Amino acid sequence: MSDFEDHPLYGLMHPRSVAFWGASNDPMAMGSVQLGELLAMGFQGPIYPIHPTQKQVLGLRAYARATDVEGPVDLAILVLPTRVVPEVLDDCGKKGIKFAIIVSAGFAETGSEGQTLQQQIVSIANHYGIRFLGPNCIGAVNPRHKLNTTFYPYEATPGFIGMASQSGSFVTQMFIHLAKFGLGFSQGLSVGNEAVTDITDCLEYLGKCPWTKVIGLYIEGIRRGRDFLRVAQEVSRRKPIVAYYVGGSASGRQAGLSHTGALAGRDEVYNAAFAQTGVIRATSMEELFDFCWVLGSQPLPKGNRVAVLTNSGGPGAAAADAAERSGLVLARFSETTREALRALLPHTASYANPVDMTFARNYSDYYETIPRILLEDEGVDSLFMYFLVPHKRVITSVLNAMTGGSGDPQAMAVEYMKTQARAVTSLAASYGKPLVGGSFYTRDELFIRELQDRGLPVLSSPERAVRALGALARYAAFRRDA
Amino acid sequence: MSDFEDHPLYGLMHPRSVAFWGASNDPMAMGSVQLGELLAMGFQGPIYPIHPTQKQVLGLRAYARATDVEGPVDLAILVLPTRVVPEVLDDCGKKGIKFAIIVSAGFAETGSEGQTLQQQIVSIANHYGIRFLGPNCIGAVNPRHKLNTTFYPYEATPGFIGMASQSGSFVTQMFIHLAKFGLGFSQGLSVGNEAVTDITDCLEYLGKCPWTKVIGLYIEGIRRGRDFLRVAQEVSRRKPIVAYYVGGSASGRQAGLSHTGALAGRDEVYNAAFAQTGVIRATSMEELFDFCWVLGSQPLPKGNRVAVLTNSGGPGAAAADAAERSGLVLARFSETTREALRALLPHTASYANPVDMTFARNYSDYYETIPRILLEDEGVDSLFMYFLVPHKRVITSVLNAMTGGSGDPQAMAVEYMKTQARAVTSLAASYGKPLVGGSFYTRDELFIRELQDRGLPVLSSPERAVRALGALARYAAFRRDA
Repeated sequence: MSDFEDHPLYGLMHPRSVAFWGASNDPMAMGSVQLGELLAMGFQGPIYPIHPTQKQVLGLRAYARATDVEGPVDLAILVLPTRVVPEVLDDCGKKGIKFAIIVSAGFAETGSEGQTLQQQIVSIANHYGIRFLGPNCIGAVNPRHKLNTTFYPYEATPGFIGMASQSGSFVTQMFIHLAKFGLGFSQGLSVGNEAVTDITDCLEYLGKCPWTKVIGLYIEGIRRGRDFLRVAQEVSRRKPIVAYYVGGSASGRQAGLSHTGALAGRDEVYNAAFAQTGVIRATSMEELFDFCWVLGSQPLPKGNRVAVLTNSGGPGAAAADAAERSGLVLARFSETTREALRALLPHTASYANPVDMTFARNYSDYYETIPRILLEDEGVDSLFMYFLVPHKRVITSVLNAMTGGSGDPQAMAVEYMKTQARAVTSLAASYGKPLVGGSFYTRDELFIRELQDRGLPVLSSPERAVRALGALARYAAFRRDA
Repeated sequence: MSDFEDHPLYGLMHPRSVAFWGASNDPMAMGSVQLGELLAMGFQGPIYPIHPTQKQVLGLRAYARATDVEGPVDLAILVLPTRVVPEVLDDCGKKGIKFAIIVSAGFAETGSEGQTLQQQIVSIANHYGIRFLGPNCIGAVNPRHKLNTTFYPYEATPGFIGMASQSGSFVTQMFIHLAKFGLGFSQGLSVGNEAVTDITDCLEYLGKCPWTKVIGLYIEGIRRGRDFLRVAQEVSRRKPIVAYYVGGSASGRQAGLSHTGALAGRDEVYNAAFAQTGVIRATSMEELFDFCWVLGSQPLPKGNRVAVLTNSGGPGAAAADAAERSGLVLARFSETTREALRALLPHTASYANPVDMTFARNYSDYYETIPRILLEDEGVDSLFMYFLVPHKRVITSVLNAMTGGSGDPQAMAVEYMKTQARAVTSLAASYGKPLVGGSFYTRDELFIRELQDRGLPVLSSPERAVRALGALARYAAFRRDA
């Protein structure tokens, strides 16, 4: 832990008090929205709005300058017009503030004049020993510390995914994306123009964070290539890193340049760097989080032999096809496994791999007995399961019939689904092999929610689940060789 | 229309009466579930359950044999143990039933004995002139005709996507997937073992269906290659076909073989066939429907030059990168466009392509003025827009401030979002160029729901939206050359 607390970014992400520039009683001002979210998050320490004229801002006592604040201030958040940033940063230095988040844009990303201004704020920061994030960033979120400096409500739970991003949107707008799966950030940092703190610093920091089980990176271009390679290699020996890199095409490169002034390189260069350091590349934001979910929650497989369990032929075939395209192979089952399956499955079923149960009367075979048989096979390194959600009308009428109409079928149906979910998830824990689910149903369904909340990743389709298992196998291969 | 009604599958999909085998008062029997769904769908004509002993099934009068039914029967649905299917099909013939859906499995997909049985039912069908779907299928759905022979509730609206699938799951489990976007099937057919009706027949049929604007195919292997090429070529000159083919890998091929006995071929062969006939290939079920949504709802672009409009830099860069990887190019704006943008955008914005508005005070610039400028540019063939959802807390407090606290801010916020949605969608209609949205928000948000329900495809991420625009451009190129 102390290694974590010693990192230069620890203080920025764990302030005990905050001074805030750019919020006012104009609700439409971006700063007002951001301060509103910090309040909504329930930040525990004192917050000091700084405003030249207003005495109160959003119900808090406001101050004309940082130096007017009596108590100590750990973190300055600046949501100000570009031109006043240097002067305010100088005030921060005089107040003894050691950390800042500079949200204001209009610096290096806009051309040479902006570059000069950015150089100016770097000099001021260096003079006072201020460590800052930005400019042109959206700040950071640390849900366990009740810190949210962005203008989006953080409504998800504290999670295990650490994020460092060259796009603020790909921190903030992921709050709702993660919430779709019951996931959340351990910490999220938007680096903006990376004037003094870049994505490599954040990677190093998240590498030390005990709550972060996996690190997601959104990259438009890496500034300090050699340092990135060193840090990535060191971190990915201990925890997985997943990167979504958009600078590999000419169009992505051009867009990134005008967004944050990032200098990007060709796909080949980045692919080689990622391969060398064990960084797993994702090809979209959705895939980044799919991969993070599985890599951050599942044990490392011994190899790339996957078992596919389904009760629907199409999803099984789609999973098989996606498996091969993701570098996995369909496991060949042992004779013991084949015999055990033959005894259990209906004659219409397939007991090769994929195992397709077709329509089954006994749900517990699907959720417990068969996955156990597959996980016990030494030729199986990982398991994919397709999840249907039994329709409520069916369950209810079945339970009604079983009990002769006594008892509350609705409540029994809920209990029944919880029991099945418990069976699958406790199974996963006991074999030390990765188990990943896929379903077209969402968390709106109790059954899916139960599975996910018990720690089983259930991704949005069979293909996405299997691709994530492929990513996990690639990472496991790196760890074996590292 | 009469061309449609003359097709051999029209009668199967538009029965006036149904006889149903395999339903009973055991709610757990698959047939009971299926009959329950047919009833739940509100099928308009008479339904005759056939059962050897029960006099009533699910509240309907039951009959011992088909020939006991007094009135005419158009369609037989068989959810029976394999061995009794031939006898029952013979009864159907005697009753004069001309269409059947054979759900029962255990035929050609299980080996040589099953193949013999399948040959037997084909002979019976030929003898009586019965046209059937299956065996080993899940049947069909035709929401406008209130027909749902599957065991899943069809809760979506009637839509414009026609589906023919070698997997029943990829019809039924797509009901909920499509509902996530407010979409639905025009008609959906699961072909199973394709004993007499194959995917090519369904493609031909859907090609004639006036409600079907785009056709989705799930393919494990095509049996009549030459006929498929002929039909696909003819249909795709008039309406787009999107195919998800899983037989291109050895694992997918093996899985498909044990699923429906399909004979698959290598990727190269299928890719060449698709390219020749203008069929657009998708690489997952999600992508199949992404593509169907855009290809079935948007006008054909003149070329592959896309404009990207965003208020978030990261999603803009991700869209730009995805565009190039999907065969699109970022449009170069005319001098008129550049000047118009320069006058409107803040100094922190980018008015190259992607157009990144950053934080904007005036929403109507984003939803109306700027997209109009971009669509008017002759160098722009299609437009992608990234959609945020303004947070309710922000909108409410803004509206509160604007009205000095008079009026109901909640109701005003709703009205405000509807107005913006109306502005974007009516714009799209008036330029004859494709406009596709992307957002990490879902239909749970009123704003997204409004956009989608007004006919604008808003896909689940910028990357997915742009890939679908790429697919549309490929289809448009085929149509120009065809």
